[in-house]
Amino acid sequence: MRLAIHPPRAGILGGSSPPATVAGWSVQGTRHQPFSLVSLVSGVSRQSGRLSIRSRIHSNLLGIQNTPTISAGKKFQLDDLIEAQQFDREILADIFEVAREMEKVEKNSPGSQVLKGYLMATLFYEPSTRTRLSFESAMKRLGGEVLTTENAREFSSAAKGETLEDTIRTVEGYSDIIVMRHFESGAAKRAAATTEVPVINAGDGPGQHPTQALLDVYTIDREIGKLDGIKVALVGDLANGRTVRSLAYLLAKYQDVKIYLVSPDVDDIKDYLTSKGVEWEESADLMEVASKCDVLYQTRIQRERFGERIDLYEEARGKYIVDHDVLNAMQNHAVVMHPLPRLDEITVDVDADPRAAYFRQAKNGLYIRMALLKLLLVGW
Amino acid sequence: MRLAIHPPRAGILGGSSPPATVAGWSVQGTRHQPFSLVSLVSGVSRQSGRLSIRSRIHSNLLGIQNTPTISAGKKFQLDDLIEAQQFDREILADIFEVAREMEKVEKNSPGSQVLKGYLMATLFYEPSTRTRLSFESAMKRLGGEVLTTENAREFSSAAKGETLEDTIRTVEGYSDIIVMRHFESGAAKRAAATTEVPVINAGDGPGQHPTQALLDVYTIDREIGKLDGIKVALVGDLANGRTVRSLAYLLAKYQDVKIYLVSPDVDDIKDYLTSKGVEWEESADLMEVASKCDVLYQTRIQRERFGERIDLYEEARGKYIVDHDVLNAMQNHAVVMHPLPRLDEITVDVDADPRAAYFRQAKNGLYIRMALLKLLLVGW
Amino acid sequence: MRLAIHPPRAGILGGSSPPATVAGWSVQGTRHQPFSLVSLVSGVSRQSGRLSIRSRIHSNLLGIQNTPTISAGKKFQLDDLIEAQQFDREILADIFEVAREMEKVEKNSPGSQVLKGYLMATLFYEPSTRTRLSFESAMKRLGGEVLTTENAREFSSAAKGETLEDTIRTVEGYSDIIVMRHFESGAAKRAAATTEVPVINAGDGPGQHPTQALLDVYTIDREIGKLDGIKVALVGDLANGRTVRSLAYLLAKYQDVKIYLVSPDVDDIKDYLTSKGVEWEESADLMEVASKCDVLYQTRIQRERFGERIDLYEEARGKYIVDHDVLNAMQNHAVVMHPLPRLDEITVDVDADPRAAYFRQAKNGLYIRMALLKLLLVGW
Repeated sequence: MRLAIHPPRAGILGGSSPPATVAGWSVQGTRHQPFSLVSLVSGVSRQSGRLSIRSRIHSNLLGIQNTPTISAGKKFQLDDLIEAQQFDREILADIFEVAREMEKVEKNSPGSQVLKGYLMATLFYEPSTRTRLSFESAMKRLGGEVLTTENAREFSSAAKGETLEDTIRTVEGYSDIIVMRHFESGAAKRAAATTEVPVINAGDGPGQHPTQALLDVYTIDREIGKLDGIKVALVGDLANGRTVRSLAYLLAKYQDVKIYLVSPDVDDIKDYLTSKGVEWEESADLMEVASKCDVLYQTRIQRERFGERIDLYEEARGKYIVDHDVLNAMQNHAVVMHPLPRLDEITVDVDADPRAAYFRQAKNGLYIRMALLKLLLVGW
Repeated sequence: MRLAIHPPRAGILGGSSPPATVAGWSVQGTRHQPFSLVSLVSGVSRQSGRLSIRSRIHSNLLGIQNTPTISAGKKFQLDDLIEAQQFDREILADIFEVAREMEKVEKNSPGSQVLKGYLMATLFYEPSTRTRLSFESAMKRLGGEVLTTENAREFSSAAKGETLEDTIRTVEGYSDIIVMRHFESGAAKRAAATTEVPVINAGDGPGQHPTQALLDVYTIDREIGKLDGIKVALVGDLANGRTVRSLAYLLAKYQDVKIYLVSPDVDDIKDYLTSKGVEWEESADLMEVASKCDVLYQTRIQRERFGERIDLYEEARGKYIVDHDVLNAMQNHAVVMHPLPRLDEITVDVDADPRAAYFRQAKNGLYIRMALLKLLLVGW
Repeated sequence: MRLAIHPPRAGILGGSSPPATVAGWSVQGTRHQPFSLVSLVSGVSRQSGRLSIRSRIHSNLLGIQNTPTISAGKKFQLDDLIEAQQFDREILADIFEVAREMEKVEKNSPGSQVLKGYLMATLFYEPSTRTRLSFESAMKRLGGEVLTTENAREFSSAAKGETLEDTIRTVEGYSDIIVMRHFESGAAKRAAATTEVPVINAGDGPGQHPTQALLDVYTIDREIGKLDGIKVALVGDLANGRTVRSLAYLLAKYQDVKIYLVSPDVDDIKDYLTSKGVEWEESADLMEVASKCDVLYQTRIQRERFGERIDLYEEARGKYIVDHDVLNAMQNHAVVMHPLPRLDEITVDVDADPRAAYFRQAKNGLYIRMALLKLLLVGW
């Protein structure tokens, strides 16, 4: 979303059309779409100054009834979703509330059509099937359509050098929202600065992956029922952890959070947590930490980091495995999380335990993405 | 579809919703979707104990009418489609009956919306554009939506070792049915044992490709008008033939079937047919067999089998070509079939003859897949 | 679209259905679809003998109203879109008129559903993400659905030698229209000769790319407001220019067109223009030409052409760059166009000038493709 100029955009294709009015009201404040199904769909009664107009519009002229009853919505606070730094407690609570509603959307219900007529482009400069399918499922679950590009590098293959900005300016002509995965840190921010169309960062290299951070915090909230006072053990490979860093960043927004670090290499993350004012404790004793935490967040040891030293990789890998014994040490209400994919850092016999939350966590990614697509495209 | 636990699933996304009732009736027995358009769409009057409730439900609450009139359907006998061994005569007849109805589905008719709101994931671990497009066309012809993964290996690319089971547990969160192509025999069965969501095997290595077998038998029935007493010549490369083996397996369910084997290498398939009680006859005389059979099922000689011996490959390849002379020897009612793609084992001058059934056969794959998607998702 | 045989095609899947009648009228002349939303949607009043029947059809039988009001349309003059030679002034004007209407199609309006129920297959034998997304966006903006094949070569990978014709005969069974990109000149024509289904050429090697030519001329018309008497400067690499050649071909249909050639290598294109009766003038002075033309059409210097001689490539590349100085020399009403992608042959400081038309040009590609898909599938 370009920051400089915000011309009014009417009609799906940028063509001109008269200003939007509903039953004589002139509606403003939602940039992407003057109306929204949201208040109808969610049934949420928000306190803030949302327009409460609800009017049935019958497109009787042509005898077609595919325009559902619409309602004026309030614009989402964010124009794009680029980095975890965009969130505060309030907006997190709001997004999670919408995600909860998304869990209840039923097939062929009005809520499942809230994004009908909208087109999302998935512009992936590196493959990430898991993330791509989650976004595409989210869009389709809400009635929207998808343009898929798994090989966005090919946009510039002929020219070997088309800028990201040029590609974005082309794709914005084809779609209403762009979900972008890129190999370079900062790419999503550059894309958002180029276009009026909302941009969602689906991971930009070593940079940010904000929807993963959101789904992680949402999962903690859903599984444990609180965020203030939560005790989270971060286990595994924390040095390289884009995921872990973003999670820590968001947790820092809550009261009395305690982080346990169980990792061979934590200097970097310790400094980070301290700078964010989060209480932390380092430990090499996974069993003891498991007995104290609410959430055991396991991550994968990345082989790439060890280069030729396969021996060190194997040692690190074997050191902090979550297995049935670790599970036995955990409290009844505690859960195991993992961003997936996993190798053997969680043994498969853990899967059957109700405290194994990682597949529910993956599913929560769907709800979070549904919520974000809805909020960015049609507002509250 | 997991075999152990069958918790009730309500709502498209696994969220909770009240038990399904239609006009005061509590409806059970359809696991994936409490209601179905089927009886309306097909107009079929089945004898078996299907619920005959037909009730118009108006979603007047929000003024939206995109929920079509729905009706309670009867669950399909199968939870997944993994191998030809799942079929008996009765179920084959039932599937073929639905496929026949699928041939008549018209654009924008109610029948074309029977899978509206459903999401199919095509999880292909090896490319098979032909099969993938056939399934995706089938899903979309019925109003459903598709998530495509042509490079499912990338699911585990980051981790180089995510199990198939973990991938399936992730994808089941995004979709309502999984169509899987894999390079390993047995992969589809493992997938089905992992998930509640129906799994269709779209080919697992040297193992099974059951929808191909179904469409072959369906084509014979459609073209010749019978299956009992059918005379089928299997020509070409029968040793490696996943296709031919599955076809023979299904034909063995019918009375008085006669198989002619015209192939350089048939020991294996002969034993197979004998074990299944199918009458067979070996022959090196393609012309004579052509004059006697109802169906001449030609297959491609696979070069890979001959390794360095290109001379043997060329010899085998040239030996059993279906050309105009072979066609002239065939009876008027007989047809030529081929699973496609073909090289020159059928000459192009055969294509114009009405007895060339191979492109109709490919199209029948669409109807069979429409039928299966409908049956697995919404039942009869 | 096969030329020889035109059997009646009824039902979306080739099944049989009764002849189409609207309110007692027997409607003929539209091969792909007996009815069309066009006259309703466009509101255009065409002089020619279009059927003016407008009738609301309520599919009350099943209580489903997803069949919009339909109207009998007049068949489009073309069966396929293969090459620029298919167009004359009149048909260009007609297509541009529909493209203008496409600019005004609004989300969830009746016009956005005109291709509901139709399936387009994008059969790409070489990647061209830009073109593919433009077609797919066009189809989805009109309510149609898409089957995507970015790797159409895989159709024949198993057999290493399936003919294009066989692939087309398979794909026609899955879709209602085929958009094909191929690496061989003439491939689109061969495809069109094979199938009943409309074929759109999305570029066949060094051959044609007719939708690019259409969007170029449409953009000139939209930006300058006229085509007769237009002055167009063709700059850059004209020797290899499929794009430039097709553009010149179409411009030759208008009166008093003047072409300026600013290029290191124009012998070939000069002969071409002369043979088409287009007035041209060669120049090495980009600034002078810029001051006289209405349209400055810049193209990319293709490195591949220079082989080992990188020095010559760098020289050619640096010679004709459109920068702020060139822009300053241009008239106020004039525009800069470019087929994209660009490297540095237009400097980025030009982008902000309203005369930089190349991203609008890319967007016009969407409208042109929407118009063509509509015309080929449902007629006027």
